[in-house]
Amino acid sequence: MEKLEKLYEGKAKKMYATDDPEVLWVEYSNQATAFNGEKKEQIAGKGQLNNRITTVLFDLLKARGVESHFIKQINETDQLVRKMTMFPLEIIMRNVAAGSFAKRYGVEEGTELKKPILEFCLKSDDLGDPFINDDGIIALGIATEEELAEISRQAREVNKQLSDIFSKIDVKLVDFKIEEGKTSDGTILLADEITPDTCRLWDQKDHSGKVEHLDKDLFRRGLGSIIPAYEEIDSRLEALAKAEGVEIK
Amino acid sequence: MEKLEKLYEGKAKKMYATDDPEVLWVEYSNQATAFNGEKKEQIAGKGQLNNRITTVLFDLLKARGVESHFIKQINETDQLVRKMTMFPLEIIMRNVAAGSFAKRYGVEEGTELKKPILEFCLKSDDLGDPFINDDGIIALGIATEEELAEISRQAREVNKQLSDIFSKIDVKLVDFKIEEGKTSDGTILLADEITPDTCRLWDQKDHSGKVEHLDKDLFRRGLGSIIPAYEEIDSRLEALAKAEGVEIK
Repeated sequence: MEKLEKLYEGKAKKMYATDDPEVLWVEYSNQATAFNGEKKEQIAGKGQLNNRITTVLFDLLKARGVESHFIKQINETDQLVRKMTMFPLEIIMRNVAAGSFAKRYGVEEGTELKKPILEFCLKSDDLGDPFINDDGIIALGIATEEELAEISRQAREVNKQLSDIFSKIDVKLVDFKIEEGKTSDGTILLADEITPDTCRLWDQKDHSGKVEHLDKDLFRRGLGSIIPAYEEIDSRLEALAKAEGVEIK
Repeated sequence: MEKLEKLYEGKAKKMYATDDPEVLWVEYSNQATAFNGEKKEQIAGKGQLNNRITTVLFDLLKARGVESHFIKQINETDQLVRKMTMFPLEIIMRNVAAGSFAKRYGVEEGTELKKPILEFCLKSDDLGDPFINDDGIIALGIATEEELAEISRQAREVNKQLSDIFSKIDVKLVDFKIEEGKTSDGTILLADEITPDTCRLWDQKDHSGKVEHLDKDLFRRGLGSIIPAYEEIDSRLEALAKAEGVEIK
């Protein structure tokens, strides 16, 4: 597979064309950002860890019946994925009130929710990624009613399976963000990444009641280095994959 | 019916207890506010017009099969309504992109929407009435799934009937806000008010393509006096009720 021209540069990864029109080359970078890019830093080792963590998670999900755009890891920081037409949506699932949700509704961080919450934000740096509901998505032509139903079904299924995966490694999946896209044949699939950059992961090994963050909140809130936390997530996930006999591509 | 102690003072009306525990006395005031109360003014005649307009609208809706908390008008500024336990929700229906919606998603004001949009905001002055979706309403215990389904059904039916009413008087119903509550026997009903304070109403008589506001945007945007516009809405609605043989209580 040949790496061709750069197609897109995001906050934490770069996407390149390849000699296969259906395949993209993703390079995970060391950049960490927060607050829509206001806080920004290079953190050695981050790209490599995220590339590995999302690889293991996509493979664990696949073993549980959840397909994604992921094809295979090709080196420490890079992976191949299927080319997709992305829906311009941040798809957020929440199991516990935290972050912007807790602040928005005046709910204490850590409050268990009566049901998992699915939220959408319209991806737009200019507009500040505004919250949007189902009617808005359909009325503005961002997805059809059928597409939105499928995106929502997949998001809830990803939440169910990811929650199970993380509970097996003593981590509470508080919330996470995914993205979805459509392949050239119209199949809607999970895309983007699943890493401690895009999930809130609270360690459950310590039962003192104090929240121990194993995610980007360490960087966002200036609580300490993210690297040991990301390494801990990676090593627990690798052990789980091994125990479950899941082959890592 | 006797007017007893004041129970609540809102931005544009006051609610009093009566000697019937199931009935409240509503007094429409002359106060106009915008931007969560930052802009505030007394406008002579406004309370009287809104009391009359909401009376005629509740009666026109009732004739179309839409029940509400409204009982009857008792004098120029006052009316009796059924006592309800309110859901702390602003229930917004949109047919055309305008106001905060147009700004939030970068859509030009006046853009027709592919379908009517139902939105909810959590009523909270402290939190700035944040946008909330269906999952959030249920997960935070603001309404049950069944209650929310009924609230949504009623909101869409109110939009259908109100759009018909306004189209008959050459007015485009762009968007509006209602509230819903529960009576002591658990019936969910349309409540609050329906007035040019709570609707965006664009005159369709002039077909020059210029938007002529017959609503609170005149005040909100400093475009002119609201009284002639509110009087125009009132007189067209009264003529419609007369033409349709609807008795005004």
